[in-house]
Amino acid sequence: MQEISTKLNEALELLHEKKFSSLRALLSTMEPADLAELLSSLPSEQLPLMFRFLPKELAADTFVEMDSELQQQLISAFSDNELTSLIEDIYLDDAADIVDEMPANVAQRILARASAATRAEINEILKYPKNSAGSIMTTEYVRLRPTMTVAEAFDIIRRTGIDKETVYTCYVTDDKRKLIGVVSALTLLTSEKTALIGDIMSTRVISVKTTDDKEFVAHQLEKYDFLALPVVDSEDRIIGIVTVDDAVDVIIDEYSEDLSIMSAVTPTDKPYLKQSVMRIWIDRIPWLLLLMISATFTGIIIRSFENALAAQVALTAFIPMLMDTGGNSGSQASVSVIRGISLRELEFSNLFQVMWKEFRVSILCGITLSITAFIKIQLVDNLIMKNNISLGVSATVCSTLVLTVVFAKFIGSVLPLCAKKLGFDPAVMASPLVTTILDAVVLLVYFMFATVFLKI
Amino acid sequence: MQEISTKLNEALELLHEKKFSSLRALLSTMEPADLAELLSSLPSEQLPLMFRFLPKELAADTFVEMDSELQQQLISAFSDNELTSLIEDIYLDDAADIVDEMPANVAQRILARASAATRAEINEILKYPKNSAGSIMTTEYVRLRPTMTVAEAFDIIRRTGIDKETVYTCYVTDDKRKLIGVVSALTLLTSEKTALIGDIMSTRVISVKTTDDKEFVAHQLEKYDFLALPVVDSEDRIIGIVTVDDAVDVIIDEYSEDLSIMSAVTPTDKPYLKQSVMRIWIDRIPWLLLLMISATFTGIIIRSFENALAAQVALTAFIPMLMDTGGNSGSQASVSVIRGISLRELEFSNLFQVMWKEFRVSILCGITLSITAFIKIQLVDNLIMKNNISLGVSATVCSTLVLTVVFAKFIGSVLPLCAKKLGFDPAVMASPLVTTILDAVVLLVYFMFATVFLKI
Repeated sequence: MQEISTKLNEALELLHEKKFSSLRALLSTMEPADLAELLSSLPSEQLPLMFRFLPKELAADTFVEMDSELQQQLISAFSDNELTSLIEDIYLDDAADIVDEMPANVAQRILARASAATRAEINEILKYPKNSAGSIMTTEYVRLRPTMTVAEAFDIIRRTGIDKETVYTCYVTDDKRKLIGVVSALTLLTSEKTALIGDIMSTRVISVKTTDDKEFVAHQLEKYDFLALPVVDSEDRIIGIVTVDDAVDVIIDEYSEDLSIMSAVTPTDKPYLKQSVMRIWIDRIPWLLLLMISATFTGIIIRSFENALAAQVALTAFIPMLMDTGGNSGSQASVSVIRGISLRELEFSNLFQVMWKEFRVSILCGITLSITAFIKIQLVDNLIMKNNISLGVSATVCSTLVLTVVFAKFIGSVLPLCAKKLGFDPAVMASPLVTTILDAVVLLVYFMFATVFLKI
Repeated sequence: MQEISTKLNEALELLHEKKFSSLRALLSTMEPADLAELLSSLPSEQLPLMFRFLPKELAADTFVEMDSELQQQLISAFSDNELTSLIEDIYLDDAADIVDEMPANVAQRILARASAATRAEINEILKYPKNSAGSIMTTEYVRLRPTMTVAEAFDIIRRTGIDKETVYTCYVTDDKRKLIGVVSALTLLTSEKTALIGDIMSTRVISVKTTDDKEFVAHQLEKYDFLALPVVDSEDRIIGIVTVDDAVDVIIDEYSEDLSIMSAVTPTDKPYLKQSVMRIWIDRIPWLLLLMISATFTGIIIRSFENALAAQVALTAFIPMLMDTGGNSGSQASVSVIRGISLRELEFSNLFQVMWKEFRVSILCGITLSITAFIKIQLVDNLIMKNNISLGVSATVCSTLVLTVVFAKFIGSVLPLCAKKLGFDPAVMASPLVTTILDAVVLLVYFMFATVFLKI
């Protein structure tokens, strides 16, 4: 980060001194992602000026890396010709993303300035549902025919390669555009010039459907260690490809979305430092309010056992410990299951296997905790601190521990699988909402055992 | 998954009927990752038999995808020659991983059977610390000289390409092996055969050091959308490369490790269904015990205010709600910060910015929650449920809410940044351990306000 700000000052100085060729040289040595960072720290009136010093191709790559606010600023400063040239230079999947994120009038201006072919392809990508393979694919890939020779294939790559998102995996189709094979650039390089594509291609083709979930697609790419994965329609015709860089973005987004959901924050793409205080408040407060209000139930339960608590004040001191243990046991189980689902190791059909495993684990954990708690009460609370916890209270606490852990692990492991089955994000089921439910259950179990052991 | 088990049955049948060429053909149509899955469901006595029907190269790729238990089974069934041939066929970074994971005697046997060159390279990779770039790199890459022509470069790729993990980015070095440029296969393909590498290479080189953290390396690959990233030593000499497929694995591991830590489970690589009940118990119980014991503090606090609680039983009913709100507010802040750290948007130098932002957010959240709680107590508890919560208790609850949220967001946002600075995993700071600390703080604040407002 230090380096970027040094380069920024250098660039501003060169701009100020009107040393334009040195400025252009300096900018050319930088990567698009770093340039985007540099441009985002510029005073906004200098942004279009500085951007125009970038070589054409680098400008397009840098534009894609910027956040949508900056992109919008630049677009409004562009002439129609500049806009056309930019749109034709960036990859179609990125162009579709940009059109999708801009306000309607800006999106319309972009589409109006794009060539008819580009416009058609962008619209093709935009018609797929938000989280589908279709929405993250690009339609720029190298398509070969089985009857071509290796030499002909290289001609195609040389002629069109620069506009394709990848040329390192080429897709072989029949007359009807049906995908019948793949051939890697390495295979092409190590084959005879006269060899036929049909003879050297691999027919071991893994593809996804346009309607498949984008997270599934990303994990397929990861599983098979591919650089790109072809996307086909319902008749197996190739429509586009998803490249590994987009798959990585999907995986990172999935990760940060899961994290947000699990800690009761509305997910956002924006970097933390760029979020306003009001925005953060809006993303967090509904959940805090919801959880606070839902904690009313625990309040009601405690109040209805007010007399029991007044008679046995010692019971109150164990409430936080029991609630925390319930919540922790539950989230341990749910995170194991959520992780299994997201790594595609678990699905709904494993429900009974998971339940049986968690049942045995919870019995083991419950008994361990219970014995430890009993020893701790006798040694620490009674012997050392002389709190005189009665055997009845000990029995209540220890029995509650066992049942709580069993129940928490059951809820924690079953809910994510059910959520997945119903089409929800399993991560919701590790959220504090579940902890709140468990709180109420723990208290009910606690007071039930108190009634049994303490006759109150 | 359905498909794999169909193919498994088919394969077993062909094996049984001794139709070996059909079996070989069937297996050849499958991807390594799927084959590994198929082999893992085989009865163990048939594993080496079936494995031997795989074509040589596919066998190597499949072996890499299997888990270490299966790999060990296979190795013990291999003849020395089979082992040599396998080790020479797999990529060096994968070979190093396998050697690293095997028991010492198996590892020694592998190294003894490897060629001297392979053994030296494996040992080179193994000497780097566990989480460094060096430990995930491979030493198989294409190295070119600036004085070569494009035609000569293609000769090298054709001759050695099949043994390199990627040929799509080639690295250009000077006499001293110092990295001076990169050239992509696409550039080679679209350049004249007689052009010099030194003229067409890009000098915009991004590299990482052997000692850099592997998560940093993975995020650099992601940031720049590269297929591979060169790893250099302290004198800028290229030592190896990290490829995008390994970067994706690092990102996924990081993700599932963070999730585990945040929910108090010891991280593991093993698929959920393959973990034994005892193993799961061992991964979970220490944390549950630790957290249960640390909840002793909350018990002590409650006990020392026993008289206050006995005098104002209404106070008890609000304890779960206050504790949950504290925990939730804290984890909201810590997850925002942890996400920022893992996406490389935040570092320790942003500490004061983060504190100031969280302070303002927490004041807003605290006041909103406080007002809502006050209205809820007056309307629901007093008017509808006739619980007669006194103004003193209301004031205690509402004041506690504000201070709790401020304190929780402070702790939640500051601890991850400090953990990062001290070299710990920031995710530890979103763990239930922090919630347990917050529980104690919330109770202390609660009883402090109770003393002020209720004069007890």
